[in-house]
Amino acid sequence: MTKADETTEFLPKFDKNGLIAAIAQDHESKEVLMLAWMNEDALNETMETGEAYYWSRSRQELWHKGATSGAIQIVKKVIIDCDQDAVILFVEQKSTGACHTGRPSCFYRQIKNNELVFIDNE
Amino acid sequence: MTKADETTEFLPKFDKNGLIAAIAQDHESKEVLMLAWMNEDALNETMETGEAYYWSRSRQELWHKGATSGAIQIVKKVIIDCDQDAVILFVEQKSTGACHTGRPSCFYRQIKNNELVFIDNE
Repeated sequence: MTKADETTEFLPKFDKNGLIAAIAQDHESKEVLMLAWMNEDALNETMETGEAYYWSRSRQELWHKGATSGAIQIVKKVIIDCDQDAVILFVEQKSTGACHTGRPSCFYRQIKNNELVFIDNE
Repeated sequence: MTKADETTEFLPKFDKNGLIAAIAQDHESKEVLMLAWMNEDALNETMETGEAYYWSRSRQELWHKGATSGAIQIVKKVIIDCDQDAVILFVEQKSTGACHTGRPSCFYRQIKNNELVFIDNE
């Protein structure tokens, strides 16, 4: 086992682009809402403000989730994985939902027989 | 909205390393067990065999999860996100757990005041 596994030191392992993966999960239903990316700034802002910040890879800028749409995420708890390169945000999702399509979650299609089938998330 | 959002066509968007992100979630408890990566081979093997395959970035090889440890993941359902660059595997985790540390989940520490606190996952 490496040091990162068993330590209480917070040593986030950013990749060569300076990013870690961030999963947003509904704090009550445990539904996974989205997967996004965080740089050090986004992680710090999230921990300090209690609202989710990500790094937008397409816009190459700090992204305060919901700042324009209203779909902010109130962060209840943040947990990190064994090698400290991924986090889960347990959030209360405000407004219509996490997805830019207006859906509660970005994961709304199932892969079946090499095609996608739209599903209803409970 | 882009085509990837609303289509029933399965058009996985691999990154420049040929990878998409894969979240493994317990199919019953909805606990997130791990975050890993898949190349096209791993995705195909997973869909065809019903067991989770990933791409090991550290070993740079196809990784049949649990092939040596016994901690295989029986895949019940695979869902994909809006831009088709991340999937969730709903799995039945065999053996001791998903994490190489022997824990059920790789996410066993909470970030609190810039330190990590070990948590008990229910």
